[in-house]
Amino acid sequence: MPVDITPDFNPLRAPTDRRLNRIAGPSGLIIFGVTGDLSRKKLMPAVYDLANRGLLPPGFALVGFARRDWEDQDFEKVVYDAVKQYSRTPFDDDVWRQLAQGIRFVSGTFDDDAAFEELAKTIHELDAHRGTMGNHAFYLSIPPKSFPVVTEQLRRSGLAAPKDDQWRRVVIEKPFGSDLATARALNDVVESVFPADSVFRIDHYLGKETVQNILALRFANQLYEPIWNSNYVDHVQITMAEDIGVGGRAGYYDGIGAARDVIQNHLLQLLALTAMEEPVSFDAKDLRAEKEKVLSAVRIPEDLANFTARGQYSGGWQGGEKVLGFLEEDGMNPESLTETYAAMRLSIDTRRWSGVPFYLRAGKRLGRRVTEIAVVFKRAPQYLFEASQTETLGQNALVIRVQPDEGVTIRFGSKVPGAGMQVRDVTMDFGYGHAFTEASPEAYERLILDVLLGDPPLFPRHEEVELSWKILDPIEEFWATQGQPEQYRPGTWGPESADAMMAREGRVWRRP
Amino acid sequence: MPVDITPDFNPLRAPTDRRLNRIAGPSGLIIFGVTGDLSRKKLMPAVYDLANRGLLPPGFALVGFARRDWEDQDFEKVVYDAVKQYSRTPFDDDVWRQLAQGIRFVSGTFDDDAAFEELAKTIHELDAHRGTMGNHAFYLSIPPKSFPVVTEQLRRSGLAAPKDDQWRRVVIEKPFGSDLATARALNDVVESVFPADSVFRIDHYLGKETVQNILALRFANQLYEPIWNSNYVDHVQITMAEDIGVGGRAGYYDGIGAARDVIQNHLLQLLALTAMEEPVSFDAKDLRAEKEKVLSAVRIPEDLANFTARGQYSGGWQGGEKVLGFLEEDGMNPESLTETYAAMRLSIDTRRWSGVPFYLRAGKRLGRRVTEIAVVFKRAPQYLFEASQTETLGQNALVIRVQPDEGVTIRFGSKVPGAGMQVRDVTMDFGYGHAFTEASPEAYERLILDVLLGDPPLFPRHEEVELSWKILDPIEEFWATQGQPEQYRPGTWGPESADAMMAREGRVWRRP
Repeated sequence: MPVDITPDFNPLRAPTDRRLNRIAGPSGLIIFGVTGDLSRKKLMPAVYDLANRGLLPPGFALVGFARRDWEDQDFEKVVYDAVKQYSRTPFDDDVWRQLAQGIRFVSGTFDDDAAFEELAKTIHELDAHRGTMGNHAFYLSIPPKSFPVVTEQLRRSGLAAPKDDQWRRVVIEKPFGSDLATARALNDVVESVFPADSVFRIDHYLGKETVQNILALRFANQLYEPIWNSNYVDHVQITMAEDIGVGGRAGYYDGIGAARDVIQNHLLQLLALTAMEEPVSFDAKDLRAEKEKVLSAVRIPEDLANFTARGQYSGGWQGGEKVLGFLEEDGMNPESLTETYAAMRLSIDTRRWSGVPFYLRAGKRLGRRVTEIAVVFKRAPQYLFEASQTETLGQNALVIRVQPDEGVTIRFGSKVPGAGMQVRDVTMDFGYGHAFTEASPEAYERLILDVLLGDPPLFPRHEEVELSWKILDPIEEFWATQGQPEQYRPGTWGPESADAMMAREGRVWRRP
Repeated sequence: MPVDITPDFNPLRAPTDRRLNRIAGPSGLIIFGVTGDLSRKKLMPAVYDLANRGLLPPGFALVGFARRDWEDQDFEKVVYDAVKQYSRTPFDDDVWRQLAQGIRFVSGTFDDDAAFEELAKTIHELDAHRGTMGNHAFYLSIPPKSFPVVTEQLRRSGLAAPKDDQWRRVVIEKPFGSDLATARALNDVVESVFPADSVFRIDHYLGKETVQNILALRFANQLYEPIWNSNYVDHVQITMAEDIGVGGRAGYYDGIGAARDVIQNHLLQLLALTAMEEPVSFDAKDLRAEKEKVLSAVRIPEDLANFTARGQYSGGWQGGEKVLGFLEEDGMNPESLTETYAAMRLSIDTRRWSGVPFYLRAGKRLGRRVTEIAVVFKRAPQYLFEASQTETLGQNALVIRVQPDEGVTIRFGSKVPGAGMQVRDVTMDFGYGHAFTEASPEAYERLILDVLLGDPPLFPRHEEVELSWKILDPIEEFWATQGQPEQYRPGTWGPESADAMMAREGRVWRRP
């Protein structure tokens, strides 16, 4: 069947993508766990949005695999509803019709050999009549405990082994284990079936425009890199704050906690992108090499009691509503020692960063939902100004606002209008939303496209996962000996011990 | 008479001024040329605004000296009308009444000895009954050709010589001569009567908040100074563009031209503040020393034909209106060789700036009214990006917007939303008007207050004037041999030779 890539049919397609020919070739995306929230709210809409932007070929297929007793049409209806409800781009009948013709569903459980035979048959049929040409990505949107059975089934049914110049890839989501040992075991399972370069680990934070912009900001400009080092930087604060509690995820969250949930992956990846040396290129190999170098230079504090902090949110009021404490959440173990707030002071033993603390914090039920990287600069080496003229002057800072309100803010001192030489902090803003008419794609659009293109720079490799656990494991082991985490009230900025940790070095957390 | 400083009577007073006690002591301001535009539109309103901000003492007097046959009340009415029409701050009856009680007028010509006797009598009477305590500033808002007679009269009548701890100061406005020789002659006249530290030369640009903010920006912050040198800066563009013609000033302007009118003073002062080393303090002595150092290191191009440019605006259309050419303006010599546009490439022989061109340009009837300093940075030493990804990326720039729309803009490259790694210029803005609730005082408020306080950092000293003429004189001499300046159309950005001058080094003027 001729595969005719006709990307001109849709007006929403970004011209920059065309120029770089970043359009997926013939391929299929097979989703396991297709009835879950992630599939409906993120994956299906992202597939449609990619199609709508002209970035998927006519020879594209979407296959669902789940226990439900659905026909293709039932699944098509599920995808349709998800697209209608959650897609970023406007609905276009032609795009949908073209996409819908490649939608299939296979019903079965993970231990049902016949179901995987059926899946193989469906895929071969798509290769023969839809034009997917033997290229398939298996998206495991399922709990890690099912990885062994599914990957084994894919191996047994021959689906993991591409012929000739076909490709087969597997996509997995965090958690990548809960410590170094479990991460290794998990990886052994997956990589026993798929070669390392066919395994795509999704950290959706890396798909965010603002995260990718860290690279553009640092390396496409002359302004920032000269001061991006210990000569000028006082410290760095990386914050991921949520204003919600664990809610329905209580069962998942117990035993995981803030550090394993987001610091191990998102925050350490943000640290790596902020602190790494300039890579030789943006190819996956070169980018990962620099991230691994800097992650392997990360040191945890010797004094873990004084330079890490944990907390659990208590019950109270937030946003005008009475909210439950962590231990009272539905389905939660009332004696859980799991932290909902984690903070730590890391250092990086490189020439560039020696002596510059990187403070990481993540928590739930905090004052505001915000993720940001704040590079805080030293004060000017001396002030010509009288003390009273600079008493309200803070430190210069460059803040990369990851979400929400994506952009960059610079804080610096400016003269206050009036006869004296009073200086006060002001800010300068760049807002992603205002600066570009191009709408920001969802992280999953970027990442699914990268999977189909086989372009892995934004996917952490297993070595990075290992390095992250090596940083976190000793901290988790220490915390495990410390009993109950300190309680903090909802809507505040975490436990007092976290503020005390900063105060010990004469610093304060930002109130973003 | 008791002088009771009661600064609490007015709510508009800036608290920062109080904290630093920047409130004038008992004093009088005597204005010569009180019927001119500057007096009415700038000086009188500024005096009122200072009073309204609580920065003038009750023992303050304003004396007008002019040929008109006015009584005190007539002059008071003139001041009242000017204040009503041009003052920045709201009119307050109490403030006005207090100020008006110290308003006097002396009628006479500059060669009339009796008029100066009368002036002396008026001043002594104010000292005795208003509480000005023998402290007086003589503001010569008159043509330089009248300086000799007026200063001699002031000497003869004893007004230039303060007793004991009284002070007498003289304020003069540009032009400070039309070349080095005339500047020296003018200075000899003034300084034969007033000691150098009692002569206040007004460059009203230096009173602007944004100009003073250059010092705060550079020296109160850690962000900028590390990249403020030839390692990172490609070049600097200092622009003063007006969108109007010479209009009624044709007679004054002929023989002066853009370079003498604004480059010699405003633009070279902006250059000095931008390029100077950090002073030991902001005291006048230290600040002037650094400005003089950098001005004495300024070099003009060897190839004056290729690295300076001049133009004259022709007749045409601007802003939807037909406008006259320079040579057709009312009262203009139709064979004038005076330039209305001047541009030059200067270099600075210091370790910091070696190899970094400073391009200055000033002109009338240009595309827009704007004064700005643009520090344009080199490109990043290398790009990891593919050529097509950075094709629209300019150079990083930090732009100090002096007027209008006062503030700072940083231009840098940011990732374009979408799947690729396209990078495009974006800007980040800080707006003075938005950042501060404090309204910016007019330059003349600041400068008159500084005169009364005897605080001269913002006033150029004669040595700076000399250094500026030493830079300009050889360029003017060269231009004098070059015949008619190139014509340029109104509303454009000047003559083609100015663009060619930049193109010769692969650069372009900003279109601000």
